[in-house]
Amino acid sequence: MVEVDVLVVGSGFAGLVAAIEAATDGASVLVIEKMRAAGGNSIISDGGFAALGEQDSPDLFYDDLVRAGQGLNQPELARILAENALDALAWSRGFLGVEYLERLEIFGGHSVARCYTARGRSGASIMRPLLKKLEELEVPIRYKSRLETIRTDTRGRVTGVLVRYGYDHADPAAGSGLDIKVRRGVVLATGGFGADVAFRTLHDPRLTAEVDTTNKPFATAEALIEAMRLGAAPVQLSHIQLGPWASPDEKGYGEAPGFADYIVFPRGIIVDPSTGRRVCNELADRKILADALLDVGHPCIGIADAQAVTQAGWNLDKGLRKGILKKFETLQALAEGYGIDSVELTKTVERFNSSVANGSDQEFEKPFLDDARPLQIPPYYGVRLWPKVHYTMGGLAINADAAVLDTQGNPMAGLFAAGELVGGVHGACRLGSCSITECFVFGRIAGKNAARSEIRV
Amino acid sequence: MVEVDVLVVGSGFAGLVAAIEAATDGASVLVIEKMRAAGGNSIISDGGFAALGEQDSPDLFYDDLVRAGQGLNQPELARILAENALDALAWSRGFLGVEYLERLEIFGGHSVARCYTARGRSGASIMRPLLKKLEELEVPIRYKSRLETIRTDTRGRVTGVLVRYGYDHADPAAGSGLDIKVRRGVVLATGGFGADVAFRTLHDPRLTAEVDTTNKPFATAEALIEAMRLGAAPVQLSHIQLGPWASPDEKGYGEAPGFADYIVFPRGIIVDPSTGRRVCNELADRKILADALLDVGHPCIGIADAQAVTQAGWNLDKGLRKGILKKFETLQALAEGYGIDSVELTKTVERFNSSVANGSDQEFEKPFLDDARPLQIPPYYGVRLWPKVHYTMGGLAINADAAVLDTQGNPMAGLFAAGELVGGVHGACRLGSCSITECFVFGRIAGKNAARSEIRV
Repeated sequence: MVEVDVLVVGSGFAGLVAAIEAATDGASVLVIEKMRAAGGNSIISDGGFAALGEQDSPDLFYDDLVRAGQGLNQPELARILAENALDALAWSRGFLGVEYLERLEIFGGHSVARCYTARGRSGASIMRPLLKKLEELEVPIRYKSRLETIRTDTRGRVTGVLVRYGYDHADPAAGSGLDIKVRRGVVLATGGFGADVAFRTLHDPRLTAEVDTTNKPFATAEALIEAMRLGAAPVQLSHIQLGPWASPDEKGYGEAPGFADYIVFPRGIIVDPSTGRRVCNELADRKILADALLDVGHPCIGIADAQAVTQAGWNLDKGLRKGILKKFETLQALAEGYGIDSVELTKTVERFNSSVANGSDQEFEKPFLDDARPLQIPPYYGVRLWPKVHYTMGGLAINADAAVLDTQGNPMAGLFAAGELVGGVHGACRLGSCSITECFVFGRIAGKNAARSEIRV
Repeated sequence: MVEVDVLVVGSGFAGLVAAIEAATDGASVLVIEKMRAAGGNSIISDGGFAALGEQDSPDLFYDDLVRAGQGLNQPELARILAENALDALAWSRGFLGVEYLERLEIFGGHSVARCYTARGRSGASIMRPLLKKLEELEVPIRYKSRLETIRTDTRGRVTGVLVRYGYDHADPAAGSGLDIKVRRGVVLATGGFGADVAFRTLHDPRLTAEVDTTNKPFATAEALIEAMRLGAAPVQLSHIQLGPWASPDEKGYGEAPGFADYIVFPRGIIVDPSTGRRVCNELADRKILADALLDVGHPCIGIADAQAVTQAGWNLDKGLRKGILKKFETLQALAEGYGIDSVELTKTVERFNSSVANGSDQEFEKPFLDDARPLQIPPYYGVRLWPKVHYTMGGLAINADAAVLDTQGNPMAGLFAAGELVGGVHGACRLGSCSITECFVFGRIAGKNAARSEIRV
């Protein structure tokens, strides 16, 4: 029998941030993680953290969130995200020591550039300082420990959990039971269910095993289901995000998203190979982009030139080496390489370049960056794009304290949640770089409130 | 203590159809209803039953369902609906004696006219034969009996329910507990949660108490929540349909929907009073229409002429008497009555009439009926239109046997569901006149399977 004040389930960003806040607040904290290492899906992200850019405001950020979310966002949660993003970023720098690149990026659906990218352009650059801080605070992570049951007292208040210790994702029956008594609060931070085909097809039957996912295979729904069993309200589960920057030429997340999101979408074009023409505003939000690709019905080609790559300051070596990205000395060679009519593609690029020169996109009203340039400097780079399941907007309902809500909308004593497991922050569509922000903002709230929850055991 | 083979919860169409099938199969059956009378929201419907029209097929019907549902429909359930609609209609005629008008109607999103309307254009015309058959079969309905708890054995199999008997919707604490032992199956047919503001705003925060509903106030989520507590999977709860044919000038369902759905949408036009112009294809599905109205941002005007009313064979007396519908001797008078620029409205009607004459809608690609006529025969009729919460597409997941599924996708022993309580049949948008079809098709399946479920008590 183990006993702690606060138990955190999951070791992605939301979980570790919650653990740090709870420990800082004086609570004894334990993190459990079902896999053999920390980081969940957070560690494979590109490390983009949306906060406030120049000439930006919480109101503008909030409006962007709700427009992309099609108004389904829980207003209170979206507002908390927008209003606390900058403070959370400052905390990650000042208290944890996370380092960010100087530049601000813009992703589709954002009105301004407000994405801070961790050095190394990888979630690992955020993970390391988090783990270091946990060590300083002497908060242990117990690996191979999978949540099985949340225990409650006769009044329904959370009093602990039963964990399968020695869990093996390849052999779910492995391991044995371990009871953990929790005096104050359990923080669920187990991520989304993008890799859980059975659960996701219950909610969106199109997303069968045929559809790939950028998530690691362990992104499954068991903690969400266990909370539902206790009476927690699941919300908006059928809103599942497809990443439009994924490539069918590689499994999982891979090399395409960085190239597409940081270079093609802001500075390049997406072309339907069967027509040679652009498909949509490449800086639209993820839902619009993914829907546009699905409407075309086959993979499209993301295209950028050497100047765009230089401007983005991005290294393409790995993607080129793996053959996911391709390099061509001329536009004609690129057209040939992807089976595009060369004349049509040339016309398309000329039209785009004249739009860039005029500062106004005649075709799709793409908002050009201030330093946008025509596509004309060889070599040219291409990638095939086809959507993959990326993020589950739905999840557990929470209130402003990150307390999990039951189906009547009442907080459940001792149960908190943060990160992708939570539903309602993003509504119908999450904007790029807002997930890490969400993990930090709500992880902090969940950790503090769990540490201050009344002692029940 | 009461003991039955099959307990049906709810006395709308789905519940009564299930009860009749279970009793016909030889089971002892009891229906419980929380209100003082039978019928739920079914009885206030217009009695439209989608089946197959002329030059129609299950495949065409299925395609219409999935297009409107944006692909979110569970394919198996949508196919069952399309393939069994005609048989269910024949059963309602032959076995129950429901009488339908000779004509077939078309509603938005359907490719062909396939709606059979019960005589009297009211759900009451379907309710009476159902209640008569129940009497013949000696199936009792116990009123003022609200489901509180579903009881299960140690293996999770349903063994009965606890009911609050003497329930009063105005005083939910009234009444006392009554245990009902169920030997074979419980059929949940408690309808949707359109009137449950707390529950619906968990899933779509825009639908506050400020937004009216066409549902009766008792359309609440308690049975859905109780099934979730047992581990049933709720699906697609955030897909809540707004009825585009509702009027802000009356409470609830009222008189506007019949006029709009049977006359304005197929034969008339919807005009934005601030511009005098049409808003969209009036025969688009409900989601497209409601979204178009919300985009306009204020109520729009549905307009038809005397000929359209005659062709539809619809009596407007009640709506006119209540002042919800208005009659004008000229188009100019109608424009004045609704504050529309008369010159713009005249131009709009002329454009529409020339489209009708050419058999092709130049503006919105509305599919004209074969007997479509220009709007030119006075008097003219108008109605103000603004969406109200009408139908909840989400609900409990079921399989092809109408067995409720748990969050792993496994059927729950002894638990069945049918009607609006079920999620996944319609996906993102239910087409008009498909709800009664759903109640009959899945009510029959649920009733039969509940009667044949293994004896557990």
